Amino acid sequence: MSFINPDFLLNSEAARKLYHEHAAKLPIIDYHCHLSPKEIAEDKQFSSITELWLGGDHYKWRAMRTNGVDERFITGDADPWEKFQKWSETVPYTLRNPLYHWTHLELKTAFGIDKVLNPSTAREIYDICNEKLKLPEFSARGLMLHYGVETVCTTDDPVDSLEYHRAIRESGFKVKVLPAWRPDKAMAVDNPDTYNAYLSRLEEASGVAIESYPDLIIALRKRHDFFATQGCTVADHGVSDFPWAEASEQEISNLFLKVRTGDQLNPTEVMKLQTAILLELCRMNHEKGWVQQFHFGPIRNVNSRMFHKLGPDTGFDSIGDFSCAVPLGKFLNALDSDDSLTKTILYNINPADNVWVATMLGNFQDGTVPGKIQMGSGWWFNDQLYGMEAQMNALSMQGLLSRFVGMLTDSRSFLSYPRHEYFRRVLCNLLGADIEKGLIPQEEMKRVEDMVEDICYNNVKSYFKF
Amino acid sequence: MSFINPDFLLNSEAARKLYHEHAAKLPIIDYHCHLSPKEIAEDKQFSSITELWLGGDHYKWRAMRTNGVDERFITGDADPWEKFQKWSETVPYTLRNPLYHWTHLELKTAFGIDKVLNPSTAREIYDICNEKLKLPEFSARGLMLHYGVETVCTTDDPVDSLEYHRAIRESGFKVKVLPAWRPDKAMAVDNPDTYNAYLSRLEEASGVAIESYPDLIIALRKRHDFFATQGCTVADHGVSDFPWAEASEQEISNLFLKVRTGDQLNPTEVMKLQTAILLELCRMNHEKGWVQQFHFGPIRNVNSRMFHKLGPDTGFDSIGDFSCAVPLGKFLNALDSDDSLTKTILYNINPADNVWVATMLGNFQDGTVPGKIQMGSGWWFNDQLYGMEAQMNALSMQGLLSRFVGMLTDSRSFLSYPRHEYFRRVLCNLLGADIEKGLIPQEEMKRVEDMVEDICYNNVKSYFKF
Amino acid sequence: MSFINPDFLLNSEAARKLYHEHAAKLPIIDYHCHLSPKEIAEDKQFSSITELWLGGDHYKWRAMRTNGVDERFITGDADPWEKFQKWSETVPYTLRNPLYHWTHLELKTAFGIDKVLNPSTAREIYDICNEKLKLPEFSARGLMLHYGVETVCTTDDPVDSLEYHRAIRESGFKVKVLPAWRPDKAMAVDNPDTYNAYLSRLEEASGVAIESYPDLIIALRKRHDFFATQGCTVADHGVSDFPWAEASEQEISNLFLKVRTGDQLNPTEVMKLQTAILLELCRMNHEKGWVQQFHFGPIRNVNSRMFHKLGPDTGFDSIGDFSCAVPLGKFLNALDSDDSLTKTILYNINPADNVWVATMLGNFQDGTVPGKIQMGSGWWFNDQLYGMEAQMNALSMQGLLSRFVGMLTDSRSFLSYPRHEYFRRVLCNLLGADIEKGLIPQEEMKRVEDMVEDICYNNVKSYFKF
Repeated sequence: MSFINPDFLLNSEAARKLYHEHAAKLPIIDYHCHLSPKEIAEDKQFSSITELWLGGDHYKWRAMRTNGVDERFITGDADPWEKFQKWSETVPYTLRNPLYHWTHLELKTAFGIDKVLNPSTAREIYDICNEKLKLPEFSARGLMLHYGVETVCTTDDPVDSLEYHRAIRESGFKVKVLPAWRPDKAMAVDNPDTYNAYLSRLEEASGVAIESYPDLIIALRKRHDFFATQGCTVADHGVSDFPWAEASEQEISNLFLKVRTGDQLNPTEVMKLQTAILLELCRMNHEKGWVQQFHFGPIRNVNSRMFHKLGPDTGFDSIGDFSCAVPLGKFLNALDSDDSLTKTILYNINPADNVWVATMLGNFQDGTVPGKIQMGSGWWFNDQLYGMEAQMNALSMQGLLSRFVGMLTDSRSFLSYPRHEYFRRVLCNLLGADIEKGLIPQEEMKRVEDMVEDICYNNVKSYFKF
Repeated sequence: MSFINPDFLLNSEAARKLYHEHAAKLPIIDYHCHLSPKEIAEDKQFSSITELWLGGDHYKWRAMRTNGVDERFITGDADPWEKFQKWSETVPYTLRNPLYHWTHLELKTAFGIDKVLNPSTAREIYDICNEKLKLPEFSARGLMLHYGVETVCTTDDPVDSLEYHRAIRESGFKVKVLPAWRPDKAMAVDNPDTYNAYLSRLEEASGVAIESYPDLIIALRKRHDFFATQGCTVADHGVSDFPWAEASEQEISNLFLKVRTGDQLNPTEVMKLQTAILLELCRMNHEKGWVQQFHFGPIRNVNSRMFHKLGPDTGFDSIGDFSCAVPLGKFLNALDSDDSLTKTILYNINPADNVWVATMLGNFQDGTVPGKIQMGSGWWFNDQLYGMEAQMNALSMQGLLSRFVGMLTDSRSFLSYPRHEYFRRVLCNLLGADIEKGLIPQEEMKRVEDMVEDICYNNVKSYFKF
Repeated sequence: MSFINPDFLLNSEAARKLYHEHAAKLPIIDYHCHLSPKEIAEDKQFSSITELWLGGDHYKWRAMRTNGVDERFITGDADPWEKFQKWSETVPYTLRNPLYHWTHLELKTAFGIDKVLNPSTAREIYDICNEKLKLPEFSARGLMLHYGVETVCTTDDPVDSLEYHRAIRESGFKVKVLPAWRPDKAMAVDNPDTYNAYLSRLEEASGVAIESYPDLIIALRKRHDFFATQGCTVADHGVSDFPWAEASEQEISNLFLKVRTGDQLNPTEVMKLQTAILLELCRMNHEKGWVQQFHFGPIRNVNSRMFHKLGPDTGFDSIGDFSCAVPLGKFLNALDSDDSLTKTILYNINPADNVWVATMLGNFQDGTVPGKIQMGSGWWFNDQLYGMEAQMNALSMQGLLSRFVGMLTDSRSFLSYPRHEYFRRVLCNLLGADIEKGLIPQEEMKRVEDMVEDICYNNVKSYFKF
């Protein structure tokens, strides 16, 4: 039996039934990813499996560095085959790491390859993949169709023109490709140089001269309005330590002027200004009835030498251990207090925070929408077997798993859709184990089957109104 | 086979034997709960299952809000059947949440109902329950006797007259209903208005005019003495961030005068005064040989809009992520240093703290009493399958599970006693699994059986000297 | 079947095969322990099992105190048999605690005893052990040979003469006994009295008069050089909260002079000076190509009454909950930035930190050495079944388990080597379960077998260049 076989990850009869009869067949809604709209618009064809797998996947880069591979074969000038070869040498050393499963799921589901990747199979697999990648059905759009994708939301900056989203729409591509609003740079007031450079771009995009804090909000609102006209219904906000520091309107105005004229704010001032901006952004999200997401807790660009060499998102980030419960509670409460808390998904990066985050949801569930406040699926470092299980268990114990909007890839790659399959298998396996242990009654088997379909598809569809 | 069957939660032969032959039969000592002494004294008869289940259970309220139920059907003016109906619609969506198990355990053990609750069974179950609730054996006292309760400790404020405890005692009710001393309001110095209002009540209850810090301590001690005369042997202290800040006697006196005259203390001052008061209270506990409990770590009343509408304990609290290890260690050390650390139970609300809390115990075990310092059973959000297992595993690895005083309901409901059954099943299941995996030797099976009986009953009896 | 039987802890056929055919036979390299070089040099013979087991094992002391045993029978003047008897009474109460397994593994593997220890077997076991301990093969060296130890690294202060290491070397003892550099006292600037007393000893050992901060560094470097000449290739640094506070060279010089003249530094100043010293020490480690270890996070000597009575390392320490991710990242980055980060092993004491620590490694893997930055095996309170599994799972999900350098005893006892056996069984059991669940493909079984041998022996050998 091949490694990635129909019953992969499904350790009980009940799990297999749930997966094959209920989860497997459903389309994919990928409500948060980092795909390039340009590549979809242009229906990019990939030059090699090296480009597709190793061109930007910092998970693989980290594994290769850990395995003793020289940077030349990772982000350097080695040729595609050499890089693939080094990756194939690394793969057997990734046993128990999620990369091992992702790799083989992708080989199987995209290319129909059943062999395991290691140096002895590397050349054959490389050649098969590269042959197939020349076929039209292996283009960006071809892969999306192959995997049954119905809707994706990309991740876009307020200054983006969203021209590629329009082009995709106009092309009649049957997968809905929607923009998502990610205004993190509008909050990055800790670095006056890059911030003011960004404000120039925002002035240009919005047509608003930004000379004061109210100008900033006006400019952002114009772009927020524009995003709405382009089909956007989702916002996303990334922070490390969750911002919460109160300040008067006057103080905020002054702090903005300070950074606008190039002065460095101290950490407390940064937090005050970020709190104010984020609250404004969240009020906009609420006005339009968007879903807002908070990704909190990572420490980024920990290795400054490599940051200067390779830039961000190259594999030098890690999980932080900030104390976010009090500020997150106060932040959500500030929004709830004046009735401007929209549907919200909380993603914590530190799995040690899973349980308290799961208990935070309940404080702001208001009965208007089932599962109004959501706990996001295992994010980034937690997007793996144990991370998914831990998130689902925390949510189950503290909230209603039944109302969970489920999986998203958060990925830059057109090959990442099998992560939905992985998630669905893990979900069915958890429920199957509960059924076999008698923790779920036989009388509610129909409910469990519906729950699986809800978490895999129906919940996200109705929550986001896609 | 019905859902709640004799072997519910017991996944091995060894577990089943331990539970049925050793755990099941033992009486219940519920050493910490929030039952109303008045309702016991008056032997309250309940008007409906809605009153009993949905009148004050904020776990259920949270689940209903999460499920999209309007507040009118939760805490509002909907009629009892409507509320029950909404709850019955929510129940199938609570699969995997502890409420699902609690609900069916209560239906089975109190009412003999084997059906699962959902909209199709709601009316029948509602009617059966309400019929039974008219019977005398379903009164407050009837339920306590039904569940084999031997002793309960309620939770009482220093200003309480304890008149209902006396009435119960004098009535000859065979269940011991003892008061427990919970002086949290005497420490709530962060709000001068409510604090001074409380002090007026304390003056009245104690007959002591409270004009200075020493007066406060005198007044509290008088009430402490009074509680002792009423059979109290247990104290309980609830905090968020564990207080530790040193200050001179003079400084404490001044801080008290400041708040007594209505001035707001800053956070550092609050912590200093709270540290001083709590130390004094703990010294009183030690003098009388009481057991003291610390419940630490939650964030309460996170949603201020709902707090203003519904008040505290309505489902808007969550788990905090405070750093408590250093202050807790210093606090316990301060007591130990002048030999005034009495038997102590530590309850952490954040399960991420389980392991360090379990290691804190050992620092203050002094050989005088087995298990002198205890780790409390999974508290509040952790009072469920995974929470209980995590607490027991942390305690097992870092301390002596054998010396654990075990379960308490912490509940406001007369229907919560099956949580002891749940706990016992989880305990037996853990031990059974260890036995089947060969982690425990056959030669010590008698010890394991005794351990089960100790944790379920004997330990608490001897620890509290009930 | 006896309790400690060949398949102890091995719950699958695959696990048993991996253990018996691949892990069991390998020699032991114990790269971090607290054995006494003097006892090895003198090939100490032990007077009784009480001396060996209860003479310094604070894990057992904690368990006895928790079990209600008076201090007289723990660290007091009771006779060896009385102490052993009290321990034998405690053992059955340690079921589920790691002590239960360690105890019986040691009885079995050192003494061939199959009985479980409890009061009814105590005398017989006591007598057998004591008889055997008279035999030459039960000496310090005899036990090391018995357990197949190839290399050990002790833990040594910069002022140590290392005379016993030389004596051992010259004696031709076939186990390599190497010193390891542990300069914690050179960083303990928070107590000027003990610090200056220590500096006097350092002056004497180094021949350098320490009048300034540069002098301190020169003195330490001389000792570092000396350690290298004695075969040392391993450094070890213990901290509570991980130090990170920047300061100018001038400020550091001034702070050093302040403490050198007996003045107390405030906590910020302590952290600045400690950061500077630790950075210097790490640069020395890098220059020599040593492996450096960081043990961070405990709270030591929590019980001051017992500290004054018994001193450190007597069972009054516990796990802290410091926030170390940001300072640890900045510290490692400071070293990496000027290319002075040597091979590094991170040991966290709080298992809630496992996952973020496992993600920190990847930020500094640079492809020069496989697994250059390591996550240490479950440390201290985590050196047990669940602690080991949690560490291995975190490392597996976030890094490359295949490159893990594996187990160390961290022990003061010559009987602790079966902990390597325990670790190997746990490792094989984890992998075996994955194999049986189909999480690892059959095609890579040879790789899994090699992985086991690598983690148990080959990795540590090549990483440390032993």
